[in-house]
Amino acid sequence: MSYQAINFKDKLALFDEQWSPKVIAQMNDYQFKVVKLQGEFVWHNHCDTDETFIVLEGSLRIDFEDGAVNLTAGEMFVVPKGVEHKPFAEKEAKVLLIEPRGVVNTGQQTGSKTAKNDVWI
Amino acid sequence: MSYQAINFKDKLALFDEQWSPKVIAQMNDYQFKVVKLQGEFVWHNHCDTDETFIVLEGSLRIDFEDGAVNLTAGEMFVVPKGVEHKPFAEKEAKVLLIEPRGVVNTGQQTGSKTAKNDVWI
Repeated sequence: MSYQAINFKDKLALFDEQWSPKVIAQMNDYQFKVVKLQGEFVWHNHCDTDETFIVLEGSLRIDFEDGAVNLTAGEMFVVPKGVEHKPFAEKEAKVLLIEPRGVVNTGQQTGSKTAKNDVWI
Repeated sequence: MSYQAINFKDKLALFDEQWSPKVIAQMNDYQFKVVKLQGEFVWHNHCDTDETFIVLEGSLRIDFEDGAVNLTAGEMFVVPKGVEHKPFAEKEAKVLLIEPRGVVNTGQQTGSKTAKNDVWI
């Protein structure tokens, strides 16, 4: 049987839209999503789950109510469940998100930045 | 408050042992583990869970009973629950494993390659 690796660069080359996570793999009930981020997101939290950010290319800052974390390619951070956060990237950053299937990118703060969920590429 | 990114290279620089996954982060009940692999592992499976491999540096082959997948840096693969597999790396590969807390590296095939579990660095 032929098994196929999932290549992050290849998957990222398939779309241009920013702030719109695309699912590339699933492990049990968790999904791996690639996303392109630039500019400022909205403050939000995920009340039921932690959320993992792995930076694949570029740099990302995640603001919290009492501080921030700066991430560059080859770094990760787990945002704890329920913690308000707001991602920001001056230039486009390419990020791998890992979180349970069904998590909405803006948490309960639905609005213009809320992306369609569970979109596979 | 000061938040700290988790840097894969920095974590990998903290140890030399091969086939001995070290936990660097936890998301809900899932753990992120860095590991250095070289040579041939043992055939095993994880009967309760899928297991994710992300290659950070080098190349890795995962053999299955009916084929294999080749992975290089920037690629990932999810080994489905219960599927027999055997990782192999000709030169040392540096890998990020993601799986539920408590998963033993050799599955039920405990032996000389079985590593201490839940070791944080």
